[in-house]
Amino acid sequence: MTDIGLEEGSGGEEMMKLLEESVLPHLEGGDLEVGLEEMDDGAAWELPDGNYLVFTTDTHVVKPLFFPGGDIGRLAVSGTVNDLAVMGADPKYLSSAIVVEEGFEREKIEKISRSMGETAEEAGVNIVTGDLKVVERGGLDGITVNTSGVGVAERLTRSSALEPGDRIVVSGDVGRHGMAVLVSRHDLDFSIESDVKPVNGLVEGLMEVDGVKSLKDPTRGGLAAALNEMADSSGVGIEISEEKIPLDSEVEGAGEVLGINPINLANEGRVVVGVESSSADEVMDVLRKSSLAPGAEVIGECKEKNPGKVLLETEIGTRRILRPPRGDPVPRIC
Amino acid sequence: MTDIGLEEGSGGEEMMKLLEESVLPHLEGGDLEVGLEEMDDGAAWELPDGNYLVFTTDTHVVKPLFFPGGDIGRLAVSGTVNDLAVMGADPKYLSSAIVVEEGFEREKIEKISRSMGETAEEAGVNIVTGDLKVVERGGLDGITVNTSGVGVAERLTRSSALEPGDRIVVSGDVGRHGMAVLVSRHDLDFSIESDVKPVNGLVEGLMEVDGVKSLKDPTRGGLAAALNEMADSSGVGIEISEEKIPLDSEVEGAGEVLGINPINLANEGRVVVGVESSSADEVMDVLRKSSLAPGAEVIGECKEKNPGKVLLETEIGTRRILRPPRGDPVPRIC
Repeated sequence: MTDIGLEEGSGGEEMMKLLEESVLPHLEGGDLEVGLEEMDDGAAWELPDGNYLVFTTDTHVVKPLFFPGGDIGRLAVSGTVNDLAVMGADPKYLSSAIVVEEGFEREKIEKISRSMGETAEEAGVNIVTGDLKVVERGGLDGITVNTSGVGVAERLTRSSALEPGDRIVVSGDVGRHGMAVLVSRHDLDFSIESDVKPVNGLVEGLMEVDGVKSLKDPTRGGLAAALNEMADSSGVGIEISEEKIPLDSEVEGAGEVLGINPINLANEGRVVVGVESSSADEVMDVLRKSSLAPGAEVIGECKEKNPGKVLLETEIGTRRILRPPRGDPVPRIC
Repeated sequence: MTDIGLEEGSGGEEMMKLLEESVLPHLEGGDLEVGLEEMDDGAAWELPDGNYLVFTTDTHVVKPLFFPGGDIGRLAVSGTVNDLAVMGADPKYLSSAIVVEEGFEREKIEKISRSMGETAEEAGVNIVTGDLKVVERGGLDGITVNTSGVGVAERLTRSSALEPGDRIVVSGDVGRHGMAVLVSRHDLDFSIESDVKPVNGLVEGLMEVDGVKSLKDPTRGGLAAALNEMADSSGVGIEISEEKIPLDSEVEGAGEVLGINPINLANEGRVVVGVESSSADEVMDVLRKSSLAPGAEVIGECKEKNPGKVLLETEIGTRRILRPPRGDPVPRIC
């Protein structure tokens, strides 16, 4: 038996393998509208009134705990709110389960709790139940924050709903969160703020567009992982125009210095939208009107060819397959 | 500003202080049937059909990960199932969010996942969504497992419902889980198995007794913490006959060797019941018929006197106040 490596927790292929081989076979997910086996952002089942209850969980670990544009508290609340939102749900209630190491500064706990409260208010959700554990010194490097959440959806969006002809839209420039954490960790001279924020307000507008079929928050593994998941679960090929992918120039510059493509890095305030071609303009209208979607772009289209694959068309017309990142170049950033 | 000590994560007075001073003031729990401020085992709100949705969370850390009678997987599923059950709910769906350290053996992940699946089956619940993170070596001592859960209740039980005259019943011998972990950690020569198990089947029977008002699973801080929480939130005094508290002789013996009173130690398969005196016999009938309640006893009564306090009457007629344990004598056991 082998030991687990860092690349297995990064949202890439290795993690999928670990989940599929060692975890999922032992669990019985039940007969739900959206269950464990779909490996979507959460689970969903029908309520007596015909709406769906959506349920999701994430444990957040990040180093440094405080980074330009946010902290682990803001990240934890935004992450769970966004997971609910991209399934089509109106996020309602969150739990907060914190584990800290003995000796952790009380001031930091306060700061993180305040940040969680403020972000929850911004998203219009309540943190309704919680847990706090303190572990022995050396048992943990600082703090982990688990947030689980429930929301209610009138209709569900799913990663598997895409069909040939559908357009792919991204709500803003990509790789910002991952790069902000990296730059902060390496103390590099770039001015990059994380995009971390709750985007349920934006998703609410998108859900009113009938042609919106699929939503994804491109967190671990970035845009590359999100697109691959969409292509894989829908059984379509996705062709992306590389020059259409919105990028901040500082993020691009830092990526060049570090040798990391921002499309593999986590976003914490972006949405990837899969929409019928006839509704793409309407989606762009919603996005352009919102302060939560800076520089949204239609970046690609679903095709019948190359099902399950993502093709990146470069500016000079060459094409290459964009694979899901094998391991996250930035461990523990989301 | 001070740093956080181990006693603050143990379910005792110090943790309450940390929560009340540094965490809760920053969170807005919302206007629920049972919300954050009640610090009950979970939160609850009304569904469109008049039932209640109950939502709870717990991150589980335990050393050793495998102990006599169970492991961290069984503990995580039982803990969340039981938290839902003692609020009056039928546990339905669980999430599982695992954080492991790089280098953690894949075989152990499998064993823990299998144990989670088996315990979920035993409880009749499904694990419907999850998360897996791998953190850098040195970032974590092994593994943490967060389980959150939702269930549906026709009526809610609450810690605050007790009135003078009500009886206090415990479903079996106490301190078993905490002592099993301690004995295993210190490699002592006692044969003690943890009581860790889902008890929702037992609670289902108890909920059919109309006089059952309050249920508690005496985990962190043991029976002592559970009774103090009940007395405090109901504003009654609770008088307990010490000789009535069921104890296994091995647990008692190990407690003497270690100088630890088992009533301060965690249970993971026990229920404390607060019931109208006229229904106490019916509760005992339900418990005696169940294999999940070995050696249940009526151990005490609620009084008007000494509101918020728990009084322990010893065999020789003396009385002393049983305080909530200040710090857990066994860090990280549940």
